[in-house]
Amino acid sequence: MSAGLSGLPVAVDAMGGDRAPFEIVSGARRAADELGIPVVLVGPTDGSLGDVGGLEVIPASEVITMSEDAARAVRTKKDSSLVRAAEAVRDGRACAMVSAGNTGATMASALLRMGRLRGVARPCIATPLPALGDAPTVLVDAGANSDCQSEWLVQFAQMGAAFYRERYGLARPSVAMLSIGEEPSKGDSTTKGAHALLAAGDPWAGFEFVGNVEGRDLLAGGVNVIVTDGFTGNVALKTLEGALRTVMDIVLQVLAATPENKAAGDVLLPALLERAAPLDPDNTGGAMLLGLQGVCIISHGSSSSRAIVNAIRAGHDLASRDLSGKLAAAVTA
Amino acid sequence: MSAGLSGLPVAVDAMGGDRAPFEIVSGARRAADELGIPVVLVGPTDGSLGDVGGLEVIPASEVITMSEDAARAVRTKKDSSLVRAAEAVRDGRACAMVSAGNTGATMASALLRMGRLRGVARPCIATPLPALGDAPTVLVDAGANSDCQSEWLVQFAQMGAAFYRERYGLARPSVAMLSIGEEPSKGDSTTKGAHALLAAGDPWAGFEFVGNVEGRDLLAGGVNVIVTDGFTGNVALKTLEGALRTVMDIVLQVLAATPENKAAGDVLLPALLERAAPLDPDNTGGAMLLGLQGVCIISHGSSSSRAIVNAIRAGHDLASRDLSGKLAAAVTA
Repeated sequence: MSAGLSGLPVAVDAMGGDRAPFEIVSGARRAADELGIPVVLVGPTDGSLGDVGGLEVIPASEVITMSEDAARAVRTKKDSSLVRAAEAVRDGRACAMVSAGNTGATMASALLRMGRLRGVARPCIATPLPALGDAPTVLVDAGANSDCQSEWLVQFAQMGAAFYRERYGLARPSVAMLSIGEEPSKGDSTTKGAHALLAAGDPWAGFEFVGNVEGRDLLAGGVNVIVTDGFTGNVALKTLEGALRTVMDIVLQVLAATPENKAAGDVLLPALLERAAPLDPDNTGGAMLLGLQGVCIISHGSSSSRAIVNAIRAGHDLASRDLSGKLAAAVTA
Repeated sequence: MSAGLSGLPVAVDAMGGDRAPFEIVSGARRAADELGIPVVLVGPTDGSLGDVGGLEVIPASEVITMSEDAARAVRTKKDSSLVRAAEAVRDGRACAMVSAGNTGATMASALLRMGRLRGVARPCIATPLPALGDAPTVLVDAGANSDCQSEWLVQFAQMGAAFYRERYGLARPSVAMLSIGEEPSKGDSTTKGAHALLAAGDPWAGFEFVGNVEGRDLLAGGVNVIVTDGFTGNVALKTLEGALRTVMDIVLQVLAATPENKAAGDVLLPALLERAAPLDPDNTGGAMLLGLQGVCIISHGSSSSRAIVNAIRAGHDLASRDLSGKLAAAVTA
């Protein structure tokens, strides 16, 4: 653990997410009680958080809702739990922040309060994809930057690889571009430009560039980091989540349709749930904003307490490994 | 049926697709025998097509493979089944062409031999998505144009809606932009620009613009036509196909894992297959290249004979309805 962050708690936005505050508080308590990770909640101190189990609460009287305009909300709600959580990291009161709230407002709070790392053109979102293989696949940028330049995508690759190394302990992750064919000539101009830069720079110090992959490869687990612009990345991620949910819904409906199906379903359900568990976003530990002077974990809006536990663990671990320092080094390598 | 195309056959590229020629020839024979649609095959006349069941064969001695560079292949293989099929439409020997071969080469053949419609900036690909609702959803552009201008996306909307009207008989389809949030301010600059143009032009003569949808809405069936650039569209389409296949594979593996599971699976499989059937690309009749002086159906590379039957039926039907004339009118409306 780096000296500066030693012992600092993870700041958890108690009011962020569809199931806030109770699932969030429950996850925070579990992380503290079961894993021994220091945690501080950020939210109202009027008792509306319920039983906080002895956790410290940094006071914040306002809440940014899921549907609010991100930039305006962060500008006007200076005493919101989201903004105060980011300030806790900036002020050295916390080693990392976790929020399951408004994604845009989480990004804006973290960016405005913590600030960008020197040398980083644009911070980006790294999201671990639901995956079936042994090694997770991380998608970057999953939604922070809609219009990108090729050079930014190269930094996303560098930061994504550094994140992957620290998060999953793989010394030299593989990095691919998301495109619409394997050939370097396939894709839009930003993608083709980034492909050329990544191919020209190979071998990179911290990762191996393996060329293009396609949308159908997102779940295949064959590559560690997949790079794209934040527009394409966000469309792909939501398409993936929507398709998985649709098919799971169909299966569950069929299993409940008749008494006969239900009996057959009782036989199959344990195995189905076990096989499908890696596809559950609650298990991935949340997305991560890369390129800031501080660690910021963006959890899924529907996060359960289990998802929050995983996010807190990931945030604490990454802060302890000085992720920000590693990211800064990666983009200047 | 318009006078000019009355009675003309559909030209089927017998050598295109992973399962060519036999599944293709089988589909062509079934379309002719079972549906009474006039069909002409395009391919070698040396007997390698097997029993063509009395269908006419337009001779073509060359084959463009799935992995060949599209532009070069079309330029150099002038006697390929793909190029000859496009020429059959251009020369008035066929009312439409169908190929399950190299998608890029199919586009290039059709574009170079048939030519663009007057007023169309860029032809685009309309792909019916796997869908669970009653009304199919068509994605346009699904891969023809990687770098797009906002104005082209407006034409994709116009042509997509005209295609939808003719293909599915809905007088005023709904059209949405694919983006990363419902608000008009969400998305990359091309998407935001197209959104603004479509919102400003509403109500349109032939469709209703309903704003943005997200990746998770692709399967939901709530909108008839979803517009995006060909890069994002192709990534989304392949992501969808990959996710559906992954989950179906998991389910089938669990159903086959033990004798107990197999017995339970025997109870559930008929209902599962029935519910999942709309997600099978073989049922959609193939993608369609919009904006050319002729009808060109692009079938999935893995097309079965059933997929080819559906593609031939769609091609014949759209040519009979003078789709090209309707598309030309749509972009100048």
